[in-house]
Amino acid sequence: MEKHHINALKEIVGEENVLTSAEDLYCYSYDATPGHAHMPDAVVSPANTAETSKILKLANENHIPVYTRGSGTNLSAGCVPTKGGIVLLMTRLNKILEVDLENLVAVAEPGVIVADLNKEIASLGLIYPPDPGTVATATLGGTVAENAGGLRGLKYGVSKHYVMGLEVVLANGDIMNTGGKNVKDVSGYDMTKLFTGSEGTLCVITKIISKLVPAPEAKKAMMAIFKDLDNAGKAVSAIIAAKIIPATLEIMDNATIRTVEDYAKVGLPLDAEAVLLIEVDGNPIVVEKEAEKVMEALKANHADLVQIAKDDAERDKLWAARRAALPALAKLRPTTYVEDATVPRNKVPDFLREVSSIAKKHNVTIGTFGHAGDGNMHPTIVCDIRIPEEMERVYQAMDEMFKAAIALGGTLSGEHGIGLGKLPWMEQQHGLVTMNAMRSIKRALDPNLILNPGKLVGEC
Amino acid sequence: MEKHHINALKEIVGEENVLTSAEDLYCYSYDATPGHAHMPDAVVSPANTAETSKILKLANENHIPVYTRGSGTNLSAGCVPTKGGIVLLMTRLNKILEVDLENLVAVAEPGVIVADLNKEIASLGLIYPPDPGTVATATLGGTVAENAGGLRGLKYGVSKHYVMGLEVVLANGDIMNTGGKNVKDVSGYDMTKLFTGSEGTLCVITKIISKLVPAPEAKKAMMAIFKDLDNAGKAVSAIIAAKIIPATLEIMDNATIRTVEDYAKVGLPLDAEAVLLIEVDGNPIVVEKEAEKVMEALKANHADLVQIAKDDAERDKLWAARRAALPALAKLRPTTYVEDATVPRNKVPDFLREVSSIAKKHNVTIGTFGHAGDGNMHPTIVCDIRIPEEMERVYQAMDEMFKAAIALGGTLSGEHGIGLGKLPWMEQQHGLVTMNAMRSIKRALDPNLILNPGKLVGEC
Repeated sequence: MEKHHINALKEIVGEENVLTSAEDLYCYSYDATPGHAHMPDAVVSPANTAETSKILKLANENHIPVYTRGSGTNLSAGCVPTKGGIVLLMTRLNKILEVDLENLVAVAEPGVIVADLNKEIASLGLIYPPDPGTVATATLGGTVAENAGGLRGLKYGVSKHYVMGLEVVLANGDIMNTGGKNVKDVSGYDMTKLFTGSEGTLCVITKIISKLVPAPEAKKAMMAIFKDLDNAGKAVSAIIAAKIIPATLEIMDNATIRTVEDYAKVGLPLDAEAVLLIEVDGNPIVVEKEAEKVMEALKANHADLVQIAKDDAERDKLWAARRAALPALAKLRPTTYVEDATVPRNKVPDFLREVSSIAKKHNVTIGTFGHAGDGNMHPTIVCDIRIPEEMERVYQAMDEMFKAAIALGGTLSGEHGIGLGKLPWMEQQHGLVTMNAMRSIKRALDPNLILNPGKLVGEC
Repeated sequence: MEKHHINALKEIVGEENVLTSAEDLYCYSYDATPGHAHMPDAVVSPANTAETSKILKLANENHIPVYTRGSGTNLSAGCVPTKGGIVLLMTRLNKILEVDLENLVAVAEPGVIVADLNKEIASLGLIYPPDPGTVATATLGGTVAENAGGLRGLKYGVSKHYVMGLEVVLANGDIMNTGGKNVKDVSGYDMTKLFTGSEGTLCVITKIISKLVPAPEAKKAMMAIFKDLDNAGKAVSAIIAAKIIPATLEIMDNATIRTVEDYAKVGLPLDAEAVLLIEVDGNPIVVEKEAEKVMEALKANHADLVQIAKDDAERDKLWAARRAALPALAKLRPTTYVEDATVPRNKVPDFLREVSSIAKKHNVTIGTFGHAGDGNMHPTIVCDIRIPEEMERVYQAMDEMFKAAIALGGTLSGEHGIGLGKLPWMEQQHGLVTMNAMRSIKRALDPNLILNPGKLVGEC
């Protein structure tokens, strides 16, 4: 980027909102994904849509890459400015513009922290359900751009189920509105859903209209320990077959159980092959009935130990084990890859078994936990990125793991996105026809390829 | 189309599956939309994906327009072969390929009748929720291509909420798969949602993977009559504010009430400004509780008469009035336009009032009924298409009605699609930037513009 471009950017957003010192640029050279980093030329923070539009116009005319960023919690290198250029920091657009109670809709800017939105609407008895592990820091814009999910995905779905409309800025600076407050809307192509999860490659999100839902009145948590992985899988299927859709239905494999027990001493048996954690929510009477049926399904499928939380304190205790999974695994080694390969729900035991055997084969530590109810697994590889020989084995294991998920009818990503991290396997999952169709859409909307270039659909 | 093209088509699908007689072509020259008709050159029925691919390859190489058609129940002229060419009839692809109980997923061909799918899964305690008025004749492929909705949209959403994956044939004959059985899937652009509701302009659907949900155990229907339209609107808002999401929440305006009463003698007072019909469903205990709260909301907002169905027979009686709405209106005059302009839920009374005053102003008969809970209205214009002077007034009224919906933050279509019927207002709703973005996607995926050309996004 040339000096006069930097000056032009300063004129648009004010000098204090353009960072160019090496220290500042370094802070925006990476996100939460190991192994990917690149220095940008400038970090630019617009105050509003108009400034965002001017920045993109300038970038587009001068073919300068633009990497949109919120809090940088991305796990697929989506925020890394791999070709230099501009990191477009959206955190100053941080206002909740409207909470419309009659239509159960919120209108907010992309820099709003997801947890802050939920705090704002909690007193109104409403929730915005997508709850990735990073809710306390992640921005709404980032979670929409990544179509983030979370623990409640089975019952409540992911971000795209809640995004009703967007204001975005296209690559050439044009401002575009999609969708609105209408519950039903089939007027034109569903650009809202196309942009949700497009990972900053098609547009920059500047406003989000999202659906809110009534908060559940009651919750009930249960935990079951299984000596046999297959029985855990059957229990999951039995719960669904009983027509119960729990809010959360989590699983941890043996490697995770042992690590968690070592770290948090919560009393898990070290030889258990699986722990299930289930929470049902909704109307208090229904919750009681459903909890009973879940307990039956767990027992009928030979759970070795079943616990049900009688109150909030007991609920917190049950959740402690699941909450410890990632920190416990991350503490083992300096580098942590949290993947999110996802398979159809009935393939979860097969996938866990494959991951475990891949880990053994390549002598790599992988603990798998995740959302058994929706098949969204988190095989977590811990390693040391500074040891090339070990990393060779890690990449080998990762490769086999993704291929195994695809072979089981699964997908590379349930909620973290593709970015750069999972790009090498995209054609394997989708085939060349689909990749070319996606690339043709990228080229149609961003002909100069300035928006997060090289990510998600690769080089065009 | 030239003779050798017809012969080539006969070679692909067999002679008996290519219709070219004037009588046959006439039958496929129109759909359920008044005022639009054009003769195709041939009607071609493929047996499978491979044949569909060959037909499209031939059409694409020779720039022959292709109009995909199921049962032709379309209400926005989406099936009308306005530029001649091929009507691609998908009704021979009519197999339910799989009902996967562990993943709650059905895989079916596009020619399956929606009601047949629901019959097949009813004994398993499951439903496929989208239920347009035409379920008994409409095909799954047509409803997905149109993103059809129905009476249960408020609680259950529309087609796109259930389509998890597709097999489609692109304009050049390439076969492409999108999505799958994974509940969470953020791998790549959401092509499934882009194709759902694309009205045959981007691809031809050859297989549909759809989500199924447990059938509700209980239902409870209620009816309320209001002398004052505003009170009906307030009652709707009060129900939602009480955190109740009914399966259906229907409204009929005074013009509809008078017509229904005249036609079916169900005992509606002729001076009522609105009738609300509400049905809650789910767990029996919750249904009872919610029905109580709905009754409270109706009474608190000055309903003049409230009835609750004690059994199925009473439920059918309450529904008889709503079911009579369209046939009663259609019987008044030879031509019926059923529109589906949709507004945010809290704008329903404003919109009904506007429609009523537009009808008076232009001396046109418009009865409005529809889905008050999700704002999806059906202003139904009855007229005689053979009287040019009357049609001038009808188009004038239609124009003002769509503009009124847009001005209220609404949309041209909640569930019938744009096709040709609502194309003239698309730019008004979306603006030129959005229209151009949609057109660029059309050109990217169908560069020869052979798929349903001139529809939805207009000429490209």
